[in-house]
Amino acid sequence: MARIAIIGLGLIGASVGLALKKNARVDIEIVGCDRDGSHANRAKKLGAVDRTEWSAAAAAEGADLVLVAAPIIAVRSVFAEIAPALRPGAIVTDTASVKGAIQEAAAELLPANVHFVGGHPMAGSDRSGPDAASASLFVDADGKGRPYCIVPSPGASEDAVRTVLGLVEMLGAEPVFIDAKEHDALVAGVSHMPILLSTALFMMARNSPGWNDMAPLAGPAFHDLTRLAKGSPEMALDIFFANRENVLHWIERLEAELARFRAILAGEERPLHEELLRAQIEREVFENRDAPRGEPMMPRASDQFMTLLVGDRVMQRTRDIMELGQTDPKERRLRERERQQEQARGDR
Amino acid sequence: MARIAIIGLGLIGASVGLALKKNARVDIEIVGCDRDGSHANRAKKLGAVDRTEWSAAAAAEGADLVLVAAPIIAVRSVFAEIAPALRPGAIVTDTASVKGAIQEAAAELLPANVHFVGGHPMAGSDRSGPDAASASLFVDADGKGRPYCIVPSPGASEDAVRTVLGLVEMLGAEPVFIDAKEHDALVAGVSHMPILLSTALFMMARNSPGWNDMAPLAGPAFHDLTRLAKGSPEMALDIFFANRENVLHWIERLEAELARFRAILAGEERPLHEELLRAQIEREVFENRDAPRGEPMMPRASDQFMTLLVGDRVMQRTRDIMELGQTDPKERRLRERERQQEQARGDR
Repeated sequence: MARIAIIGLGLIGASVGLALKKNARVDIEIVGCDRDGSHANRAKKLGAVDRTEWSAAAAAEGADLVLVAAPIIAVRSVFAEIAPALRPGAIVTDTASVKGAIQEAAAELLPANVHFVGGHPMAGSDRSGPDAASASLFVDADGKGRPYCIVPSPGASEDAVRTVLGLVEMLGAEPVFIDAKEHDALVAGVSHMPILLSTALFMMARNSPGWNDMAPLAGPAFHDLTRLAKGSPEMALDIFFANRENVLHWIERLEAELARFRAILAGEERPLHEELLRAQIEREVFENRDAPRGEPMMPRASDQFMTLLVGDRVMQRTRDIMELGQTDPKERRLRERERQQEQARGDR
Repeated sequence: MARIAIIGLGLIGASVGLALKKNARVDIEIVGCDRDGSHANRAKKLGAVDRTEWSAAAAAEGADLVLVAAPIIAVRSVFAEIAPALRPGAIVTDTASVKGAIQEAAAELLPANVHFVGGHPMAGSDRSGPDAASASLFVDADGKGRPYCIVPSPGASEDAVRTVLGLVEMLGAEPVFIDAKEHDALVAGVSHMPILLSTALFMMARNSPGWNDMAPLAGPAFHDLTRLAKGSPEMALDIFFANRENVLHWIERLEAELARFRAILAGEERPLHEELLRAQIEREVFENRDAPRGEPMMPRASDQFMTLLVGDRVMQRTRDIMELGQTDPKERRLRERERQQEQARGDR
């Protein structure tokens, strides 16, 4: 019987356990441990692990696969602790949000006769701990697998990589193979920036002298956009510092984007309309097919290939617009707008 | 029997109709109209209105209360169109996201013998049209009324203001009395900025050369934070231009906030930890009591008044921390962190 050790039984570790128990068609033994004894007990009660051990080393001993789901700051010490206990040929993986520093730590601290294959599930919650865990954490509301980055270290065997791939598939997630450096650069934009931005938007409003009057007016948009500010400050801190250069780069990029919007808004109406229209169409393309390929583009009715690319929903809208006898949907909407404005002016 | 006219049967107008039909304990007749005939038919089928008329003037004729739920850009022409049809003493209200320009238009275009009381429900969706409408749009998931701004014009009678207040309460919303100018300044921060920011974050990523590799890595955080970019570009355009000076101000404020975070992140770990910790606590205070009063503050266990202010959940957490024998929870967490770091360093 295969034995899997899960070190760290918070949201991610306990969810991995629950998903494995639910989806595995063969018998596996899951041994867990957590520095916080109440987390370990809770994970066992929830059925995320078969048994718990008091130390990471004891849990890892004899395991075929060790999944380290500890906070970034703790991963190094976990590696150091489990190193002497790992059996030769064991496979070690992790779930940390940064991969460069973790890969370096693995190379430095893990024995040469084990295989390290980094991992990063793009799933989370503003809640934490085993009580927030769920077997379906790695799947979105539509049942589609959430991305799960797989970052094989240079020395990992093909079998080790295939094993971690199998784990990811068993969780229901969508595997994405990526190199550690590229991972950290890209994830800073789509994952770490949202946390920072959510916090910055909240603090912008909170620090304003008008906050006491603003807060009662906040609707669902403000609540949703500042939700990530509720997450663990320690986790955010770990992420920002472990991936500092990349996060700094993206903050600058966002500042530039805001300055660009400010300049457009200070000018005529039409360029802002074009910008908002493009954002809406591109956002819809993104949602209908999570991974669009090629340069930014607008749907063209003549192009059958686009149906494949953007999905039926966007294409139907484009077709509806086409039937009105215009050649360019964006142009048509811009003209319609100008007609409405003239009409509004005429009414004065 | 009281007659209410709803001009504009999109998401908001149709939701008002549905909520009134559901909650009103007396007989009311709701007459609706929409420039888009299919919207009007759909709203009637859904039961949001009793009957429809082909023009705003015909719908408004003889109505006791006229609710204008048209796009901002169309409100002026609706006012001009209904003005000759309104009966003396009629009450007119609207649902537009800006209030200064609308109040001016009402003063200019509506007859002196009707009462204008502006309104703005802080509720919405990235979906639009009557099919997205719901009788519970004005209530959040916990059954708590969403904010609904009431902005009486200087000439409105007390009875007219009370009537609109009664309408807001019947929708299940939480009334907030506010002056037009103040409304526009504050709402730019908590409602218009989230739309702009959501769009800017999406376009930052979309315009990046790495987008094709980034998009497959986007998890729930990126999806949620860029959701508002899916909303109607025309509605966003109307809002941004009708409230341009205020939105420009808040964009600058957010740029400053991002630059501040960038400077903190470029330095030592502790100041960023303090900032993130403060954001988390304040965000929780905000959620537990939507309208905190007083200056930014940290929970203090000794202060009974805080329970009233921040709710039981934050207080329980504060108490738990206190029981560990520390006097300042923030200080304790910062120290705990430093202890962990030392331990992690010791393990290398």
